[in-house]
Amino acid sequence: MTKLRVELLLTGNELMCGDVIDSNSAFIAQQLATLGLEVTRRVTVKDDLDLLAEELVSQSKRADILIVNGGLGPTVDDMTAQALSLAAGVPIVCHPEALAHLEDWCQRRNYPLNEPNKKQAMLPQGCDIIANETGSAPGFLLALNGCLIYTTPGVPRELKKMLGNEIIPHIRANHALESDTQISHFGVFGIGESTIQEMVNNALPDWPSNIELGYRAAMPNIDIKLTSHDKAAHDIKPLWQQKLIDLLGAHVIGLGRTTMPQALVEVLASHHKSITFAESCTGGLMASQLTSIAGSSAVFEAGFVTYSNAIKTSVLDVKEATLLEHGAVSEQVVVQMLHGALAKSGADYGVAVSGIAGPGGGSDEKPVGLVWIAWGSAQLSQTAALYLPLGRQYFQQYVAAVGLDLIKRCVIGEKQPPAYLEARKAKLSGQQ
Amino acid sequence: MTKLRVELLLTGNELMCGDVIDSNSAFIAQQLATLGLEVTRRVTVKDDLDLLAEELVSQSKRADILIVNGGLGPTVDDMTAQALSLAAGVPIVCHPEALAHLEDWCQRRNYPLNEPNKKQAMLPQGCDIIANETGSAPGFLLALNGCLIYTTPGVPRELKKMLGNEIIPHIRANHALESDTQISHFGVFGIGESTIQEMVNNALPDWPSNIELGYRAAMPNIDIKLTSHDKAAHDIKPLWQQKLIDLLGAHVIGLGRTTMPQALVEVLASHHKSITFAESCTGGLMASQLTSIAGSSAVFEAGFVTYSNAIKTSVLDVKEATLLEHGAVSEQVVVQMLHGALAKSGADYGVAVSGIAGPGGGSDEKPVGLVWIAWGSAQLSQTAALYLPLGRQYFQQYVAAVGLDLIKRCVIGEKQPPAYLEARKAKLSGQQ
Repeated sequence: MTKLRVELLLTGNELMCGDVIDSNSAFIAQQLATLGLEVTRRVTVKDDLDLLAEELVSQSKRADILIVNGGLGPTVDDMTAQALSLAAGVPIVCHPEALAHLEDWCQRRNYPLNEPNKKQAMLPQGCDIIANETGSAPGFLLALNGCLIYTTPGVPRELKKMLGNEIIPHIRANHALESDTQISHFGVFGIGESTIQEMVNNALPDWPSNIELGYRAAMPNIDIKLTSHDKAAHDIKPLWQQKLIDLLGAHVIGLGRTTMPQALVEVLASHHKSITFAESCTGGLMASQLTSIAGSSAVFEAGFVTYSNAIKTSVLDVKEATLLEHGAVSEQVVVQMLHGALAKSGADYGVAVSGIAGPGGGSDEKPVGLVWIAWGSAQLSQTAALYLPLGRQYFQQYVAAVGLDLIKRCVIGEKQPPAYLEARKAKLSGQQ
Repeated sequence: MTKLRVELLLTGNELMCGDVIDSNSAFIAQQLATLGLEVTRRVTVKDDLDLLAEELVSQSKRADILIVNGGLGPTVDDMTAQALSLAAGVPIVCHPEALAHLEDWCQRRNYPLNEPNKKQAMLPQGCDIIANETGSAPGFLLALNGCLIYTTPGVPRELKKMLGNEIIPHIRANHALESDTQISHFGVFGIGESTIQEMVNNALPDWPSNIELGYRAAMPNIDIKLTSHDKAAHDIKPLWQQKLIDLLGAHVIGLGRTTMPQALVEVLASHHKSITFAESCTGGLMASQLTSIAGSSAVFEAGFVTYSNAIKTSVLDVKEATLLEHGAVSEQVVVQMLHGALAKSGADYGVAVSGIAGPGGGSDEKPVGLVWIAWGSAQLSQTAALYLPLGRQYFQQYVAAVGLDLIKRCVIGEKQPPAYLEARKAKLSGQQ
């Protein structure tokens, strides 16, 4: 059985000029993946009759299944039917079933059936209707050059219904489908794509060729994806996934789409522990990420955004003398911030950060990108200085991720330090 | 002068399988639009060497400018360089300038330059480097079939820098550009698209037909876009833009891509005033949005994330009796939170919020989506209760935007209340 070739054709000026971000094709791909079908190529064109007709001819020659999205509406820039009739060399005619749908649609809404609406019943001769449960424009289906072309509406909720209720069952019934593709994901933090690849090459040289290993940068994380296409591969995948997870250790955030704040909330909740944050350069980002997670109130009561020196002193009891002697971005100050926040909040664990996000405020001794972090409990805390010259917003994002990661490692009792603590270590003047 | 034909080629399995929604091509299209260039066709393919090479040949024959996005990274599924060398029939060689960039990149981060990284310096012979300021993989430029091919990284922030700093200026310098489409933007908050359109129809019925008025939902804001295509239209556009801005009043966030936190920092700085936040349901989001703006330290010293009742009392001096009598989500409590934060921080202005983000924690009397907001100064404060049943994360985003908007209106002395205070007003039990 040969693999079915599937392509997409999207049309719409709004998709070309950047006014609208295309989420339909991701949805279509995800639905097709449930049938083990993979979209290999997708073309997006503006609303131009010749361009559309040309693509329909070219794609129908390449693919077994072509899903066309958009251009079914009542206005002049909706020209999918016209383009397909041109591509197939058949006249465009009034389709009785489509007309009946439109009449019914308008009647039930007390609309008059106007000329622009009637245009939606003018379809390429010989096509079959695909029911549109939630919209006025029916889809339609036509074979061209041995390819089955399904046309679908651009409105996402109409597309979703039509795809799920009509097209997926039709493909299942009318095409000889290959087996079931299975995909699993997990996220990692604090280790680069190339380092991971090197670790896999070195430690798991016999990685099976039937398990595809993919990486996706999902800043500041990396999403790792394992894909298998047949039962033999499905069966061994859990084992190899576990080997990979073991290899990457505490760099793994969690299975599936688990985010760092989610993972931390889960770890804290399962240990019945609570957390607080004393944030200078991240300005509340750690607290806001944690509290974006439902259920975070079980592990979080208080956060302190202490941006100025005076506030570090008045709110967190950082000593004025320490600020004067060492400056706000120093090991001594983050340690006092941490212990101040732990004392004020009564939390079990805490993270304190103070750094120079930039663009201003840097010096030779303390450049933009330097951050001091203290983390741990009232009994046991650690510190680190990192150098992260990443630009203000990404610096803040990365520091927040580091803060959440370090305290998560601390809560689970991980002894091995993460790769980035060494790789991103700040060189401090006066140090060897 | 003929119109330049511009196409895009995107590569990445993650784009094909629906794991990632492509926002890069919208960004590229928007940037090219500033040069009056229109993307007419975009092809997206999986990471397959033959498929990529075939598209490069085919698109280079159709287009004058081809922008390739993705596939520049260090791993095996990054194959843009290899595909272009195949398409152009030139060998792939180590590019000294790219290697120097990579060496410098790794050195500055204290990484070893490993083999996967070195792969990023292996480029088609004869290509020119496009500097990547924010990432390890340089872009490159090669002419093929009379088409200039620009390759760019898939990581959005790397793409943005490279496009703005390198490619747009290069296109401007190296291509005969047709007319000057001019686009101007401004953002509005708290008023819907259809309401804006109705206001324009009523108050500005003689809106000129040569100034296109476009709307784009950029949650929670709306981005308004004015496009003109010739000198006559350019000349009158500032006048009409000003009429529209006057009509929308304080719903306008600011010109261009000004964000709400940016606008607030500017307003506070120009009034020499400072701000503080007492956040319960937003969990630090207002503080983190404000401090994401460079220069925010001039207007912000302290923020308080007081998630639990005990912390509202210990940190912000909210009375226990008030919490017991009225509950944490009440007018009385947000007023005390506001005054506590103003007193502790010494700030001129403050915003306090307490609400039910959900999914749990709601009741008949105080449903998920209810939020109380207090804002103002120690001398003069106001309160409002809104009902925003939007789901946890969007609820938090919207409440933060409302908080920043209300205090901005207060600082500039705007007397007219915003549209949403009435439209989103919570119906409270016991009220008429």
